[in-house]
Amino acid sequence: MNRKEIFDQIKKKRSFLCIGLDTDIDRIPDFLKKEKDPVFEFNKRIIDATKDYCVAYKPNIAFYEALGSKGWEALEKTLDYIPENIFTIADAKRGDIGNTSALYAKTFFDYLNFDSVTVAPYMGIDSVIPFLKKNRFVILLGLTSNKGSEDFQFTELKNGNRLFEEVLKVSNNWGTSDQIMYVVGATNAQELKNVREIIPHHFLLVPGIGAQGGSLDQVAKYGMNESCGLLVNSSRAIIYADKSDKFDEAAGIKAKEIQLRMDQLLSNNNI
Amino acid sequence: MNRKEIFDQIKKKRSFLCIGLDTDIDRIPDFLKKEKDPVFEFNKRIIDATKDYCVAYKPNIAFYEALGSKGWEALEKTLDYIPENIFTIADAKRGDIGNTSALYAKTFFDYLNFDSVTVAPYMGIDSVIPFLKKNRFVILLGLTSNKGSEDFQFTELKNGNRLFEEVLKVSNNWGTSDQIMYVVGATNAQELKNVREIIPHHFLLVPGIGAQGGSLDQVAKYGMNESCGLLVNSSRAIIYADKSDKFDEAAGIKAKEIQLRMDQLLSNNNI
Repeated sequence: MNRKEIFDQIKKKRSFLCIGLDTDIDRIPDFLKKEKDPVFEFNKRIIDATKDYCVAYKPNIAFYEALGSKGWEALEKTLDYIPENIFTIADAKRGDIGNTSALYAKTFFDYLNFDSVTVAPYMGIDSVIPFLKKNRFVILLGLTSNKGSEDFQFTELKNGNRLFEEVLKVSNNWGTSDQIMYVVGATNAQELKNVREIIPHHFLLVPGIGAQGGSLDQVAKYGMNESCGLLVNSSRAIIYADKSDKFDEAAGIKAKEIQLRMDQLLSNNNI
Repeated sequence: MNRKEIFDQIKKKRSFLCIGLDTDIDRIPDFLKKEKDPVFEFNKRIIDATKDYCVAYKPNIAFYEALGSKGWEALEKTLDYIPENIFTIADAKRGDIGNTSALYAKTFFDYLNFDSVTVAPYMGIDSVIPFLKKNRFVILLGLTSNKGSEDFQFTELKNGNRLFEEVLKVSNNWGTSDQIMYVVGATNAQELKNVREIIPHHFLLVPGIGAQGGSLDQVAKYGMNESCGLLVNSSRAIIYADKSDKFDEAAGIKAKEIQLRMDQLLSNNNI
């Protein structure tokens, strides 16, 4: 998918919700564990119940990897099952020397057919270049939503920038807003204003609302641009909204609730 | 394995060589492609031919992931095949919020039984803490061997440090040299002197000799400490030394050549 197609979906669905498929075998309802592939069965039902309210799904690769080759199969099936008009994000936080990053790109783009991959910026340009493909996105870590973001991301540089600002500015020259998005956590919503001065047009993937405590309204206030420019993620608050055999219905209700608020926030910005 | 056991192996084998198992299905000899699991078959023969000359193996996870669930199986079998007295490194460059890093740790330590995992420092302390386990190591990226290391790692901070120095200093408080190692590339060998002033006792994983052009002698000169403190990696120069059906023999010869030089370098340092 390209940037225009994502924005078209946002306008059509009145939503900029991304649902994180952090599917933990230890947290899915017991009755699903009798299925041949409980993880895929869980995802399938979550997707059926929420696909009208979101514009993106973000499987967290750690949860699939932890199950070995079986987890990998569940991931492949999940990707096949996600409707074509929904943007897909491999939350993998990869990043390595050029020949290795090229392999990661091959895995996530060609083999699994993801639309995008999250990448850590520490190793610089040659760890990112292999992900710059037509109609695909690399989603670089800018400012993350965790406590550890304070350790280095906010560190002040000699040139006056903080490290995450330097990452935005430097990487901005590596590709266009049709190829690069950035992770900026909702737990630092007040920083979004500043982020928007550096990168006014890029899409931002915003984790941290829900279980991590960030505010959707604040994110929209400081982060929304003329083509929305936001994919706001919620994982645990939606997919684990309920533990009964109606977990999927509960997830749908929770997703719809967020979508309705997003509809208003889009209207407030004349979208 | 713990630090003492690694040093014991270094003294016994007169080697601090780590062999990178970057096993690329497109680069292995044709005759192996008839095997049921060509990647494992290749690794098995490389291990048989080189295990007396190295103290560590480092599978690059990207190469296995690129093959989907089959690659994962080849990785599992490879791990099972590596002799117990050889240190194993999952070159995965992971790093995520706490609950996700905990899953990565579970995958690589508990499920695959790796002794260590490489981790990117950008997300800070809570992305690293879950990897601090007894008799396991987290190997944090300090200064990498690629061109992109110039983009952020050498950036000067307001406090006078460069970013990679800040990473070494700050993370030094997160755990001990029995839990943390650092990646410092051989292509920046002159920086090792400076690195040793910050972290005199830690083991360093040093990529970049061989195909990437770094010098083993320079690395030993500036980086070796009283318990060696170095695991110097070579991947492509060893495992692709030859393309014939005697590729394993050629890999063994190449590994022995490096081991013989390492023996001298250890002696020069009275080890």
